[in-house]
Amino acid sequence: MEEHGLNPFCDRYQRAIELIGARWTGAIIRAILAGVSRFSELTAAVPGLSDRMLAERLRELEAEGIVRRDVVPDMPVRVEYHLTDKGRALSGIVGAVANWIEDWDPAPQASPASGADQSLSIAK
Amino acid sequence: MEEHGLNPFCDRYQRAIELIGARWTGAIIRAILAGVSRFSELTAAVPGLSDRMLAERLRELEAEGIVRRDVVPDMPVRVEYHLTDKGRALSGIVGAVANWIEDWDPAPQASPASGADQSLSIAK
Repeated sequence: MEEHGLNPFCDRYQRAIELIGARWTGAIIRAILAGVSRFSELTAAVPGLSDRMLAERLRELEAEGIVRRDVVPDMPVRVEYHLTDKGRALSGIVGAVANWIEDWDPAPQASPASGADQSLSIAK
Repeated sequence: MEEHGLNPFCDRYQRAIELIGARWTGAIIRAILAGVSRFSELTAAVPGLSDRMLAERLRELEAEGIVRRDVVPDMPVRVEYHLTDKGRALSGIVGAVANWIEDWDPAPQASPASGADQSLSIAK
């Protein structure tokens, strides 16, 4: 039933999962992975995320080598946030979480346009 | 470079990753997945985990339908914690995190028996 070959404890695993699962961090990584790159676009993309928390999380993710801050020499200068190779490699974890919620916490299927009958059949 | 097909935000994704990445939770799930099932064995398996925090996390994981508390009618009665099907399905995420740390935060290769020179080279 359990995976008996698995080591019950790994400090690097614990550190990694608590890093990417910290409040807001997983959502920020996903938004950047999806192509959102500007500070103001990131706060707009993640409901409830404040400027202060985003700045703090971006600093942490830069320090971990997961996010790179690029200054684009435009007029005016533009700052963009991108994932490093190490950060992009987190897409495997984002995908695994997506698969899990697909199986165990599926989205409501009904749309307002899909009609009452379908809504009813899905609500059961 | 980024995954432009990905929706930048998903509230169920954020909820799931913050649930399993909460302090201690990822480590507790891994230990149970590896076959640790008793309360005292869990605190022994995860360094720094207090009885109080373990009890709190197990209650949360039970409420989420991830962990099941089984009372085994032995003499004396024994309590065991196991993953539900929903909880065991988290093994895909645990595996994805393991793959990521393997690639980006690899374990030091040296053992104490491998000699001073190698220890020095790894300490730098």
